[in-house]
Amino acid sequence: MTEPHVYLDHAATTPMRGVAIEAMTRHLADVGNASSLHGSGRAARRVVEESRETVARALGCRPGDVVFTSGGTESDNLALKGIFWARRSADARRVRILSTAIEHHAVLDPLAWLAEETGAVVELLPVDNLGVLDLDALRASVARDPGSVALISVMWANNEVGTLQPIDRVVEIAAEHEIPVHTDAVQAVGSVPVDFGTSGVDALTFTGHKVGGPYGVGALVVRRDLPVAALVHGGGQERDIRSGTLDVPAIAGLAAAVEAAVKAQPEHASRVQALRDDLVRRVIEVVPDAHLHGAPAGEGRLPGNAHLGFPGCEGDSLLMLLDARGIECSTGSACSAGVPQPSHVLIAMGCRDDQARHSLRFSLGHTSRESDVDAVVEAIGPAVERARAARA
Amino acid sequence: MTEPHVYLDHAATTPMRGVAIEAMTRHLADVGNASSLHGSGRAARRVVEESRETVARALGCRPGDVVFTSGGTESDNLALKGIFWARRSADARRVRILSTAIEHHAVLDPLAWLAEETGAVVELLPVDNLGVLDLDALRASVARDPGSVALISVMWANNEVGTLQPIDRVVEIAAEHEIPVHTDAVQAVGSVPVDFGTSGVDALTFTGHKVGGPYGVGALVVRRDLPVAALVHGGGQERDIRSGTLDVPAIAGLAAAVEAAVKAQPEHASRVQALRDDLVRRVIEVVPDAHLHGAPAGEGRLPGNAHLGFPGCEGDSLLMLLDARGIECSTGSACSAGVPQPSHVLIAMGCRDDQARHSLRFSLGHTSRESDVDAVVEAIGPAVERARAARA
Repeated sequence: MTEPHVYLDHAATTPMRGVAIEAMTRHLADVGNASSLHGSGRAARRVVEESRETVARALGCRPGDVVFTSGGTESDNLALKGIFWARRSADARRVRILSTAIEHHAVLDPLAWLAEETGAVVELLPVDNLGVLDLDALRASVARDPGSVALISVMWANNEVGTLQPIDRVVEIAAEHEIPVHTDAVQAVGSVPVDFGTSGVDALTFTGHKVGGPYGVGALVVRRDLPVAALVHGGGQERDIRSGTLDVPAIAGLAAAVEAAVKAQPEHASRVQALRDDLVRRVIEVVPDAHLHGAPAGEGRLPGNAHLGFPGCEGDSLLMLLDARGIECSTGSACSAGVPQPSHVLIAMGCRDDQARHSLRFSLGHTSRESDVDAVVEAIGPAVERARAARA
Repeated sequence: MTEPHVYLDHAATTPMRGVAIEAMTRHLADVGNASSLHGSGRAARRVVEESRETVARALGCRPGDVVFTSGGTESDNLALKGIFWARRSADARRVRILSTAIEHHAVLDPLAWLAEETGAVVELLPVDNLGVLDLDALRASVARDPGSVALISVMWANNEVGTLQPIDRVVEIAAEHEIPVHTDAVQAVGSVPVDFGTSGVDALTFTGHKVGGPYGVGALVVRRDLPVAALVHGGGQERDIRSGTLDVPAIAGLAAAVEAAVKAQPEHASRVQALRDDLVRRVIEVVPDAHLHGAPAGEGRLPGNAHLGFPGCEGDSLLMLLDARGIECSTGSACSAGVPQPSHVLIAMGCRDDQARHSLRFSLGHTSRESDVDAVVEAIGPAVERARAARA
């Protein structure tokens, strides 16, 4: 983009960090397949393995736990299908998958497929009105028949409303029955502290383009001793559970981005949270009936997420009106944008259809500045007025 | 790589073309998810759709036929599993998949999985001693029960010995019974003429890093009216059969590379074929009992492929001896390199185990020069001598 604009959609994708662009471009002109035995191949392999070590240091796992994939969606599919298949083939009673009603489509859609095509029994557990998983419901569901649970999958932080989930409690409940836990941490890594080892989860999804790395690359971090069936078959490059030629430059860019994002996380979080709190406060000053969806800020919410309801507006109209003024945000997940359905996340939180439709998500990131907030505050009043008029 | 070296492993991966690096790096610093509705999102979407048109022009298909994926392995998995599932769910009798014994692991391994896990009946048809599919065997297999064939998958050109397959005849046989044909054209695009429309195939795999584009991106070209079940579920970005955030810079790089490779193909093929013929002739002058595996050159073989047998040598030893002199080649497919098994391709062509083990593949590409051939001719004699001594 050459025109100046106010980008407040970092939850959809965040600009690449300089260090990631450097790490990636340094290897674009290399030659050598990382599976080849000759010198160029071994050099490419070294880049991959050093990147794996960098990722492991940043996320508190062992290098051998890191399985590189093409991104978050593939990682989620691999975790859900791969762990489900492996667990059920070890014990045919394990047919249940417990998850939440507010997962990303990259989790919900594989779950729906597993239910429809392979006989999985999927239970999407409820959340409260802030978007936090109902732990009693999880506990009750597990207790009903622990031996039948193949897998529990709960996201670390919700992509739409930013609510953090009680992963430590989920792990406690699962541990009693040795049920593996997967978490989609795509929105969490770099925004809040994420440590695979101390979290106790068995599998964790993250992706490059949400931490300032490239698109098209991500990883499933998964304990080496947890059997996972392959989703994509072929050369067996990644522990025989993921096949496909290793994308050396993108892997180098991913590692550089994760390292930088995790290192900067504490300072980033407090800086972005201050901007976000400012944005919320000032927008509500201008539009008094606007209100924050999800957790009230502080510890229970991603620092960069401001998900606001504007009664009497269509979110889509508001989005386009702001876009016309160079302010870019979202009505929810970019992945289902364009599809005129109320957000399943807001519905699960108890919103009515019309409440779910009047929402906008501003998500701040590493390039956000006070001037971005100023621009929103200046534009939001007239935009809401016009959106309301358009609807009246 | 900074040290000078002789790279003759273009079939494993070929260096990125300048135009592809430019197209890709131009978009690395862009912001905007191609599924987002705002200006940056729409700009990203334009890059994707223009790239899709470029790919379509280069490959003789419609833009709507192009499904971007993470590469050849994913495209093959999507084609085989997706078409098989869709065809069988439309008619439960369709349980057979016909393919060849010399496919890449990205085809063989999904087929093995379909057979083991989902009840597919896979028939790997024989090839002759040049590595060409036995069309009578295909015809007989189809005729035995045409209504039970879900899919035929035959590679366009073999990755190890370079033999071209009679795709036009396969399509004729399949067409009589309206059986869809998939072809893995990963090695063919840019090396020989490949036109999706005139070929009559229904689905075609290709990938970026074999045509001078980036790793981590490829496509399945598949007729819009052929139902394909999804392999990776989520946002449904690509025609609802492939989910995952679109990798805008890589897609731009892929399009630039395919366009350049296809445009240069006729000249490239004759230049590289002359170098290859020279290499084969001069190597056999130095090592008289060396011999070419596969088709004798001319029309039946990839122009850059020289797959040679060196009796009395272990291919792996020879590879390492040449590598020590800066000459990089392969014993077969990079994706199964390191696994000490004789090539399934050579075994299918009737080689004994020891014959299969004494082979080396030199594969030439867009950066190959006469000096590369000179280097091989100079090094091969002493290398063969030492490899034979080591084995004696």
